[in-house]
Amino acid sequence: MRVGIIGAGQLARMMLEDASALGIAATVLADAPDDGAAQTCADVIIGAAADEAGVRMLASRCDVLTLDHELVDLALLSRLESEGVVVHPPTEALRFAVDKAEMRRHLGAAGLPMPNHAILEPGEASDLAALGTQLGWPLVIKAARGGYDGKGVFVVEDPEAAAATIDDLHRAGITALVEEAVAIDHELAALVARRADGQIVAWPVVETAQVGGVCREVVIPGVLSPEVAAHAEQIAREVAELVGVVGVMAVELFATHDGLVINELAMRPHNSGHWTQDGSVTSQFENHLRAVLGLPLGATEVTAAAVASINVFGGDDAVDLDEALHRALAEPRAHVHLYGKTPRPGRKLGHVTVVGDNGAEVRAAAWTAAVALGTPVPAEMEVEIR
Amino acid sequence: MRVGIIGAGQLARMMLEDASALGIAATVLADAPDDGAAQTCADVIIGAAADEAGVRMLASRCDVLTLDHELVDLALLSRLESEGVVVHPPTEALRFAVDKAEMRRHLGAAGLPMPNHAILEPGEASDLAALGTQLGWPLVIKAARGGYDGKGVFVVEDPEAAAATIDDLHRAGITALVEEAVAIDHELAALVARRADGQIVAWPVVETAQVGGVCREVVIPGVLSPEVAAHAEQIAREVAELVGVVGVMAVELFATHDGLVINELAMRPHNSGHWTQDGSVTSQFENHLRAVLGLPLGATEVTAAAVASINVFGGDDAVDLDEALHRALAEPRAHVHLYGKTPRPGRKLGHVTVVGDNGAEVRAAAWTAAVALGTPVPAEMEVEIR
Repeated sequence: MRVGIIGAGQLARMMLEDASALGIAATVLADAPDDGAAQTCADVIIGAAADEAGVRMLASRCDVLTLDHELVDLALLSRLESEGVVVHPPTEALRFAVDKAEMRRHLGAAGLPMPNHAILEPGEASDLAALGTQLGWPLVIKAARGGYDGKGVFVVEDPEAAAATIDDLHRAGITALVEEAVAIDHELAALVARRADGQIVAWPVVETAQVGGVCREVVIPGVLSPEVAAHAEQIAREVAELVGVVGVMAVELFATHDGLVINELAMRPHNSGHWTQDGSVTSQFENHLRAVLGLPLGATEVTAAAVASINVFGGDDAVDLDEALHRALAEPRAHVHLYGKTPRPGRKLGHVTVVGDNGAEVRAAAWTAAVALGTPVPAEMEVEIR
Repeated sequence: MRVGIIGAGQLARMMLEDASALGIAATVLADAPDDGAAQTCADVIIGAAADEAGVRMLASRCDVLTLDHELVDLALLSRLESEGVVVHPPTEALRFAVDKAEMRRHLGAAGLPMPNHAILEPGEASDLAALGTQLGWPLVIKAARGGYDGKGVFVVEDPEAAAATIDDLHRAGITALVEEAVAIDHELAALVARRADGQIVAWPVVETAQVGGVCREVVIPGVLSPEVAAHAEQIAREVAELVGVVGVMAVELFATHDGLVINELAMRPHNSGHWTQDGSVTSQFENHLRAVLGLPLGATEVTAAAVASINVFGGDDAVDLDEALHRALAEPRAHVHLYGKTPRPGRKLGHVTVVGDNGAEVRAAAWTAAVALGTPVPAEMEVEIR
């Protein structure tokens, strides 16, 4: 069995680690030879995710295509599907992760909980003052396509700013999704894996501690009530079934005073699930591979009382990552995962997971290693460093 | 940091998985492009372990050289060391894993416990009847170099058979190690990792269930008394210090009525330690990499009450490994590790580890998956299949 991965970032790199263990061969389609997974894959095709020749070469070598990121060419993948190429997740599902406006329409029609919103296609005018009155100021404007990690999300305070932002998107041919600014108590991620035959497994729902739209940490056990967690899992299972995803899917949700609403979908292993590599019976990367290859899904229980997974970012100071790794591994229980990237301020370089008996302890240990690797501690967070 | 691995079998393949996670680059020197690790490594040099040009090319690309197996050219590695190449384990240690006669002499001189034995160099005659009377019949004759997994070990009943076996070895230029046939209660493996600066960590000592000189399973908790386990660990630490190993070392021991004796040494990750991938805070592969790169060593505790690791072998019937994987993964807690090998009768193809609360349960689950992968159950073992 050979799996082909469109894109060669850290998610592909971590898939490759589990593919190796399962005896599964893999090929990546990489933008550049120094992409994280291109550094570690035995079979690399250099090409953009939307490059037809590259994607066709990948398909010709592999039994199934899957992806490292959603910045793909849906029309191209759909054509390949019609020619018999297996793409998992299938484009009929993937479009709801690629396009937030399509996701809002489809999930909304199914009665799934969502923020109040309006969808403005390029060329479509709107009375923004009225829309702001209806949804409440400030408004959140999102690019329907192309955003990630807080990019492509804009908070605007008045009709003029809203109009300018929407105009920018429309001029670039991008649909604008205009949403109410939800009063968020917690940001949650519900992670599931689904096979083509409908089998679904779910990992425990986690809270993601976000700063500036970027996930900084996941700690288990979190503060979520069992009821909220169960509801979030139920929503994720419903979405998985509704859209027919094959592979891992993360449903990002907001917990509000009025209950849960869906923020967005990712149809691939997700940052909120990196803890599963060291803290769950089966990692999200392994179950993604299993799902897209039609293999039985593995157990998803947490293997310990407490797990903390902290993202590693480049700071303002130059860091020699080899020396930093030396310091980080002085934390003897730290599972350090680095993505093969050159440090730059704000760049996500890796993550550190610690598994143990006590949430505060594993969090302090993981943060200690993450800081040793150069991660700045956000001013918004209280962090204990040992 | 780039590590160079001489040999590209399953041990190298599993090292690569952990190297990827740590952000460490790797190059393998592979006999053939379809070697286990050559299938998964982004940088492969094709060449034999004793091929000077290949080893020199590997050294020129890497910060440190380590190995997948001990069938290396010690003289070549020693020359490279004198030229400044870092080889870990260093040849001064490695020779005791490469050559059992040297190991017996050196460890015996240090007073470490060993079976009674005699060393017969090529050309050296001996009164085998007298030696047999002294050590007791049958005798165990071992090739000092080149054996593994029961190969190169011969049990002989009388002076004529002993002479014939020794002549065969001597004609091949191989030293014969003649040993008493120890009455073995248990076969043990004590696994440690040591850095060049002397830091040593030890995993829990395990019993290895062997059939025909080949390890079939490791189950934790085993039947070893805490005293025997502590003594075995102490011996392994003494040996590590004595020989100056850098990297992982396994000391295989026999537990007898009269106490422990050392069987042999392996200076690399060892089959008896495959359970550490899924059942210990830090795997033997990761700590091997950390040790040879001078990084701090990770914690070695068991992460659960019970761990079972069962080797997967090819059986007499042809098996489609893809289909077999499908059946094996129906065991939802099974961690299946396959080495990228084509099944052949008796060939070691992988291993299955299950971690849980109860030794009998994890053993049954792991055996069930191993049998689904085609592993024959040895007649000598009692195995529960679910």
